[in-house]
Amino acid sequence: MTSPADSYRSLTERVQEISLLVSCAGLLDWDRETYMPAGGAEHRSAQLALLAGMCHERFTDAVTGELIAAVESSEVVADPLSVEATNIRELRRSYDRETRLPKSLVEELSRTTSLAYGHWVEARQASDFKRFEPWLDKVVKLKMQEADCIGHAGQRYDALLDDHEPGATTQWVASVLEPLRAELAGLLERIQGSSRRPRGEILHRRYARDAQEAFATRVAGELGFDFQAGRLDPTAHPFCCDIGPGDTRLTTRYNENDFGDAFFSVIHETGHGLYDQGLPREHWGLPAGEPVSLGIHESQSRLWENFVARSRPFWRHYLPVLAEHFSQSLADADLDAFVFAVNEVQPSLIRVDADEVTYNLHVIVRFEIETALLSGQMAAGDVPAAWNEKYRRLLGITPPDDAHGCLQDVHWSHGGIGYFPTYTLGNLNAAQLFAAAREKLGDLDGLIASGQFGPLLEFLRANIHRRGQQYRAPELIQVVTGKPLSHQALMDHLRTKYEELYGL
Amino acid sequence: MTSPADSYRSLTERVQEISLLVSCAGLLDWDRETYMPAGGAEHRSAQLALLAGMCHERFTDAVTGELIAAVESSEVVADPLSVEATNIRELRRSYDRETRLPKSLVEELSRTTSLAYGHWVEARQASDFKRFEPWLDKVVKLKMQEADCIGHAGQRYDALLDDHEPGATTQWVASVLEPLRAELAGLLERIQGSSRRPRGEILHRRYARDAQEAFATRVAGELGFDFQAGRLDPTAHPFCCDIGPGDTRLTTRYNENDFGDAFFSVIHETGHGLYDQGLPREHWGLPAGEPVSLGIHESQSRLWENFVARSRPFWRHYLPVLAEHFSQSLADADLDAFVFAVNEVQPSLIRVDADEVTYNLHVIVRFEIETALLSGQMAAGDVPAAWNEKYRRLLGITPPDDAHGCLQDVHWSHGGIGYFPTYTLGNLNAAQLFAAAREKLGDLDGLIASGQFGPLLEFLRANIHRRGQQYRAPELIQVVTGKPLSHQALMDHLRTKYEELYGL
Repeated sequence: MTSPADSYRSLTERVQEISLLVSCAGLLDWDRETYMPAGGAEHRSAQLALLAGMCHERFTDAVTGELIAAVESSEVVADPLSVEATNIRELRRSYDRETRLPKSLVEELSRTTSLAYGHWVEARQASDFKRFEPWLDKVVKLKMQEADCIGHAGQRYDALLDDHEPGATTQWVASVLEPLRAELAGLLERIQGSSRRPRGEILHRRYARDAQEAFATRVAGELGFDFQAGRLDPTAHPFCCDIGPGDTRLTTRYNENDFGDAFFSVIHETGHGLYDQGLPREHWGLPAGEPVSLGIHESQSRLWENFVARSRPFWRHYLPVLAEHFSQSLADADLDAFVFAVNEVQPSLIRVDADEVTYNLHVIVRFEIETALLSGQMAAGDVPAAWNEKYRRLLGITPPDDAHGCLQDVHWSHGGIGYFPTYTLGNLNAAQLFAAAREKLGDLDGLIASGQFGPLLEFLRANIHRRGQQYRAPELIQVVTGKPLSHQALMDHLRTKYEELYGL
Repeated sequence: MTSPADSYRSLTERVQEISLLVSCAGLLDWDRETYMPAGGAEHRSAQLALLAGMCHERFTDAVTGELIAAVESSEVVADPLSVEATNIRELRRSYDRETRLPKSLVEELSRTTSLAYGHWVEARQASDFKRFEPWLDKVVKLKMQEADCIGHAGQRYDALLDDHEPGATTQWVASVLEPLRAELAGLLERIQGSSRRPRGEILHRRYARDAQEAFATRVAGELGFDFQAGRLDPTAHPFCCDIGPGDTRLTTRYNENDFGDAFFSVIHETGHGLYDQGLPREHWGLPAGEPVSLGIHESQSRLWENFVARSRPFWRHYLPVLAEHFSQSLADADLDAFVFAVNEVQPSLIRVDADEVTYNLHVIVRFEIETALLSGQMAAGDVPAAWNEKYRRLLGITPPDDAHGCLQDVHWSHGGIGYFPTYTLGNLNAAQLFAAAREKLGDLDGLIASGQFGPLLEFLRANIHRRGQQYRAPELIQVVTGKPLSHQALMDHLRTKYEELYGL
């Protein structure tokens, strides 16, 4: 007789081996975005498809399901907060999700999205949504099928959200975003009514690439990123990639006429990287050693990027250091002016360039459109008009064309529907966690202004990173901050900051 | 009934999928030697061990053997020079080799060599062979077992040689190396008797890293290396790594006080890379699309490094270009002096630093010791004395300690016995191929002096690269050059070159 403890051991060995194989694909992915020569693209696709197929096949094998079943409801998982219970709970979730999708649908989705991507690239270049419309329609219909296979309690969008944010529902997300939307609109109006304006010019002087890299690397290291167990490399679209224990990689791009472009993206990715480096590596390859969700991951990147690195105390500490790196461009640097410049609020058309106030409005537009598409209330062909109308209403500007409108993001072409809300969940989580850290640590501004980031990092390590997937995101926020997630902390943060900057 | 043609198709699909998995490990290996952070070493070992195990398991599965058996002696392989016959012949060879090794021996070798490597590192640091001796002894005994499992006609060393140089025998290698050894000794004596000496100082001025990289990249590209399908990156020990079609990677290291260090290593690796890029990629992952042997691979690197890039015509073309890259260090550069400097002959203790004349003597020392160890005529403990005596006799110098003597190479600690001879086979192959190219192309020196490398590359593409493993190495040399391999062409090349340089 195999005991539940034996089954648990077999299961974890099996899953960790699959994770090891997944992590091989991780390096291949990283390399594709950093160093792979153009000619290697086709071979790389073949390598990645092979590994993906092998991982999927092994994980969805009936043996995995039998082992999970042999352990769940046994004494091995008696304590619901134990490593064992965490692993079994989340493996059950993934196993059910993956096995509910018929192979034919997975293949159809893969084929369609890989074609859709090409059509999206062309449509965006030509700024012609019509070319992408039939593909968006196909993708939406396949995602509906996917949602129906996975199962949901009426709202198909729930099943898609759950892929990135386990346990989240459309209704819950809407209940958080709706008040946020209203309050952001009010704040934005007040800011736009102010006569104060930052002088952004200081950020657009000449910033040599090597000096940018040196400064960003220094700051990332001082925030706590371990470069013995990580790297920073150039790429086209910045990302963070966790290869495995001891190997977490940040990437960025450099614009010599825009200081903020690389710097804040490095700090953003450093936030992701600190989370990965802080996970309990002894459980690597199992849920107990993995990040909770995209919304929690994004909270770590946003916390360091916006709450730390766009704050006045941060620049009180680092502006003199920055001025040493760029003595010509920053000879006249003034703290107030610099902090105002890196926090300029300006409604714009492109999400990835948006400031802290308007960013979430961009996300809300996408959430509203996605939910309408998935419920069948909106057709693919209606997207451009809906998009433009929402931008006009929420941000007060109307895209001049589809390239600057509904064709700007790659996500839908990849089938990434249900992903956007995690960006705003990340901001909300970050705000609530940062407020909790401030309460716990006392003079957090003073610590930051003196370059002491250790206490804040340790707060995150203890409360978020080292817990792996012990809690799902909403519970985790409740446990750490004592409150359910709401728009309150983010609005408090934004009001305090921007009332002062814009003299409201 | 499955036809032999169906079996052939199943077999090639199976093997190409395994090759795809092997190529994933290829990228992981490349990354380990270039960009991997130190902290990632343990995880990387686990990834590579997993992939190696999976590849071995799949390839040695009985199904592979059954498919091979179903095709061989069928009409599919009727033409012995066809792609099909090539694939079946060489897959049979690999399958037999791999399946003859019991798993216990493979694991024991892997365990022992991974420990032996650590002990070799320590022993070399301490320059104390005694610390490595028991490990060399273990490795040799395991390699004896390996040879006995694989099978041989009396000489165990044959079975090891065959791993790197299919079909080569100890007797055949000895029959080529013995006359080479005698003639090299004579040439070296005459060179040492000359009063002419080059002024090496010109190579040890200041050569900025970036300019070295720019120059080497330019030359590699002009020789024919396709940087759309490849890269050049920094590493500690230069190598070339073929990830797959469209993705061939060169590496080098830079020494700002030694021009030759990076430059000739880049050209050497470019030679390897040109071979890889020139293979028939439609057969990638099968013997018909793979390089013949280490000795043929090394012939390509040596041909471009020594026969092209150390020649006077080459520098007639490139010295002015080099002087543009290093205008300060090379203001007074003189063609004759420069060519003499990059061809200085000087017996030295370290193989990897050796010149064209003495290099093969270093290899011959190792070949003689390895064959004596494998036949049981020499014990591990006798190696230092034998080594030092052979260096004294062949090169006229005696290592002051083991670090500069028998501990200098990593190969034995890895179990790489039977590998060294392929270095000299590479030089011999290169010489014979270059002579054949000269005969075919007419004024090869004139082509090189005018920077026209295309005809030479096309000669190699047509005669070597595009053939994959159609012929084994000795046959290939016979077919391309019309003669069996001998020491003659290399000695002709060396005599002509050094008689002129040293005024003999």
